[in-house]
Amino acid sequence: MKLMEDRISQDAIIEDGEILKVGSFLNQQIDVPFISRCAEEFHRLFGGEGITRILTIEASGIGLACLCAVPFRVPVVFAKKSRSSNIAGEVYTSQVFSFTHGTEHRIMIPRQFLTSADRVLLIDDFLASGEALRGLDDLCRQAGACVVGAGVFVEKVYQGGGNRLREAGMRIESLARITAMSPEAGVTFG
Amino acid sequence: MKLMEDRISQDAIIEDGEILKVGSFLNQQIDVPFISRCAEEFHRLFGGEGITRILTIEASGIGLACLCAVPFRVPVVFAKKSRSSNIAGEVYTSQVFSFTHGTEHRIMIPRQFLTSADRVLLIDDFLASGEALRGLDDLCRQAGACVVGAGVFVEKVYQGGGNRLREAGMRIESLARITAMSPEAGVTFG
Repeated sequence: MKLMEDRISQDAIIEDGEILKVGSFLNQQIDVPFISRCAEEFHRLFGGEGITRILTIEASGIGLACLCAVPFRVPVVFAKKSRSSNIAGEVYTSQVFSFTHGTEHRIMIPRQFLTSADRVLLIDDFLASGEALRGLDDLCRQAGACVVGAGVFVEKVYQGGGNRLREAGMRIESLARITAMSPEAGVTFG
Repeated sequence: MKLMEDRISQDAIIEDGEILKVGSFLNQQIDVPFISRCAEEFHRLFGGEGITRILTIEASGIGLACLCAVPFRVPVVFAKKSRSSNIAGEVYTSQVFSFTHGTEHRIMIPRQFLTSADRVLLIDDFLASGEALRGLDDLCRQAGACVVGAGVFVEKVYQGGGNRLREAGMRIESLARITAMSPEAGVTFG
């Protein structure tokens, strides 16, 4: 999506070669009219799939997922991160490893918010290692829900997670696909 | 707003007399079409005020604030909570006391996301002690921004925060005003 690539080229800041700062439009400040146009693009791609629920992971994805849900007219559910292991039997849980922080955490959603009748669209801001999407997919599998696909705002293609998930059969649509980036050369899309 | 009162009566769960669980439509699961109707109500109330930015506090308010921003066509900024005291001079900060958790924390937003040209609508899911809105108002005061008012989904009137802020001059519009609640008698609106 050219709109997203242009916005990244214009407003994102590259730090230390690996970190892309998008806080001015996609994180601490959310450019709502812009994200609504992204939502229309996801709706163009997935609107015919009978989506019943959008699933994301806290925290940065929640606002984006809510805006994406508007044209689909479906509820959003987000998986909470939890370090506690004593979770009651009324939730689905999965383990997710964060390469950014070098830690593993548990994600969970109450069983009542995801059922075998659901056709789920996963939404996340970034796709890098693919761990978040893999964990959300695991929660859906436990619930017997069908994962129709994933809509991602920014994919770091060179980290390989997206292609691993595609090879495993997940349909992933990314609005911007970054193949390389550095503070000197900027961002390369592919 | 009768729609919100009816939804609370139907779907919220009262725990231990003081905690209102709204996770099925306002928190971990967000009923997006329902929240979009709430957003239209806030737009009816504040749409003529020349709002340039919507401000909220992480985490539970972010999705709601994004949906509220759709009819206003303005960006959302959220204040981050931070326990660290070594924050650079490029942010506005304020101290907020949480009566729920008995702790004090610092909230902050980068200066670039709030300016003296802004006319700000504050949005939050709950209003109880009023500490969150007071902290957000303080950030706006530091930036020289004008706080037009606050839109709140659920006000616990009996905790007094809303009326203290109104007496101090803040315009607050709450979609549901709870004057009493108990597991036995349920919720009373006023």
